[in-house]
Amino acid sequence: MIIPVILSGGSGTRLWPLSKTEKPKQFLPLVGDRTLFEDTLLRLEGLPGLADPIVVCNESHRFLVAEQLREIGTKASAIVLEPVGRNTAPAIAIAAMIAARTGSDSAGPEMGSDPILLVLPADHVIADPDAFREAIEQGVAAARTGKLVTFGIVPTHPETGYGYIEQGASQGGWSAVARFVEKPDAATAQTYVDSGRFLWNSGMFVFGAAAFLDELGRHAPAIRTVCESALSGLRADDDFTRLGPEFLKSPSDSVDYAVMEKTDRAAVVPLDAGWSDVGSWGALFDVLDKDKDNNVLRGNVVTSGVENSLVISGSRKVLVLGLHDVIVVDDEDALLIMRKGSSQDLKLALAKVKDDSTDD
Amino acid sequence: MIIPVILSGGSGTRLWPLSKTEKPKQFLPLVGDRTLFEDTLLRLEGLPGLADPIVVCNESHRFLVAEQLREIGTKASAIVLEPVGRNTAPAIAIAAMIAARTGSDSAGPEMGSDPILLVLPADHVIADPDAFREAIEQGVAAARTGKLVTFGIVPTHPETGYGYIEQGASQGGWSAVARFVEKPDAATAQTYVDSGRFLWNSGMFVFGAAAFLDELGRHAPAIRTVCESALSGLRADDDFTRLGPEFLKSPSDSVDYAVMEKTDRAAVVPLDAGWSDVGSWGALFDVLDKDKDNNVLRGNVVTSGVENSLVISGSRKVLVLGLHDVIVVDDEDALLIMRKGSSQDLKLALAKVKDDSTDD
Repeated sequence: MIIPVILSGGSGTRLWPLSKTEKPKQFLPLVGDRTLFEDTLLRLEGLPGLADPIVVCNESHRFLVAEQLREIGTKASAIVLEPVGRNTAPAIAIAAMIAARTGSDSAGPEMGSDPILLVLPADHVIADPDAFREAIEQGVAAARTGKLVTFGIVPTHPETGYGYIEQGASQGGWSAVARFVEKPDAATAQTYVDSGRFLWNSGMFVFGAAAFLDELGRHAPAIRTVCESALSGLRADDDFTRLGPEFLKSPSDSVDYAVMEKTDRAAVVPLDAGWSDVGSWGALFDVLDKDKDNNVLRGNVVTSGVENSLVISGSRKVLVLGLHDVIVVDDEDALLIMRKGSSQDLKLALAKVKDDSTDD
Repeated sequence: MIIPVILSGGSGTRLWPLSKTEKPKQFLPLVGDRTLFEDTLLRLEGLPGLADPIVVCNESHRFLVAEQLREIGTKASAIVLEPVGRNTAPAIAIAAMIAARTGSDSAGPEMGSDPILLVLPADHVIADPDAFREAIEQGVAAARTGKLVTFGIVPTHPETGYGYIEQGASQGGWSAVARFVEKPDAATAQTYVDSGRFLWNSGMFVFGAAAFLDELGRHAPAIRTVCESALSGLRADDDFTRLGPEFLKSPSDSVDYAVMEKTDRAAVVPLDAGWSDVGSWGALFDVLDKDKDNNVLRGNVVTSGVENSLVISGSRKVLVLGLHDVIVVDDEDALLIMRKGSSQDLKLALAKVKDDSTDD
């Protein structure tokens, strides 16, 4: 069985002011009619052996998660509530422990007794779900041989905002991981793309629950110990699974740092499926359909002489004249106007004004 | 006596969305703490022989006018309400008739029996009121010799948005008008500026009431006849002077076309006093004080990497990143974002969306 583990804990301030701490981007219909969270689940339909998902989210988002699951007719095997985010390693550890506990009871002989976890952030966009599901099946095959598989995005340009994975010896649909590298400078990124061996680190994984927990215990024993303790204090009601307060003691670490970069069981499956993490307004623009002026205009927007721009209006009339490559996001409480490519400035500016803006 | 005639009938849509038909720009504190209308009257203080002003406005603005006069402690000799605007010639004709009727009764021998009208649009900015009052005194001296005087702005650049006045023979503080010319193209404007003989047509005038009405009767008799008829139907209460319905029959014409370009009594006084008609957002930007990044920021505005820009926030937080030479005006009902210099686009765009935007 394949258990999707949907990581929904992000706070999504990079898409401020639409995405807010209290309703971050994964719960917004940014691309199409469905939210990113809903699409993350819906695009899995058709995968063989698919089990009910485990969703991990912040407790303040529990009703958003539950309602959106209800809207798409998906029943979670658990909605796990984090009292506070501790990055991805502890979140996945908890999900793996829950899956190991419940999954091994029901797994048939065909699947083996170690349930396969398909770990997916809730806020990614995939333009080609067919290609995505094919890659997942490659990853599942590798995971069944005991590998911890990460999906590596075939790069479309020398992006400096992502970490890269260098592929080692190929095993058909997957490769060994030669190494993980940090976000490169532009020149290095260009050599990576030119080499054809490097992939973007996507934050999506597939591995057996027991295999993951073994490697977690080997490379990040503190996280495993704390999570086991939190699991023993777990309280589940009809709708939600609440972690015990021990969870707060966990180190805050990504699964890349805690496990993937250290284990010798890492493998990578290349993914060329129109992937985006929608990590900035410019990235959102890139994945949306454009009009004849290469604009994306939403709401009551009138333009003249505007090109290559994203304009989102809330309730008001917005008139934009004579500008190109701009992002305009008109929300009830705040207005953002920026040159496309100024995402780093947005992050810095929001840090300055955080107290009275990102949380309202 | 010098009777200021304040023309307050403009609808000011060029500063949309702040300036609206129901509260156009002359009634807004766009520059400093006082409204443009208030400043128009206050900057006259100190002129010798100054009488109470006649204000001509649209009837829908009568309480704005009356309240702003009350705030600055000015009593109008009349607040004349137009049921609908008929451009400047009929408005000035009515004011001249009222002034001739009342002014000649009270004029001392020093002033002569023809009261001098100082005609001023309510929405102009003058950075140097001392120089302005000196020019007015030159104009008054010329008007006392029977001239119809227009103030010609010493051009600071080859503007294509104004008509020009070519100066003829100089008479000291004023000149004969050689000719009026329409808005020129850029090359022609440059030759005008280079010549040193051309001035911008400002829309400000000084002339005797009787002299003006004589010339109006000669060159635009229909306007004079209709206005005399409207004057006979005039109803005045404690606060306002209402024109009779005959006024609606008046041709709609500017005083330039109807009189100044045709009379052989036209004279021009050069004015170099930091004048602006605040005819666009760019023009407003030009007259406002800038910060170290050459920005004008009003309200709850945070910027990074922004230069040469005007950002006006209403109640919301506005974040602007990585843009230069932009105008952002965030009003309750509408939002304008434009490249500085796109005023013509603004006019065209508003014409398209007028029904549901300029009047709300």
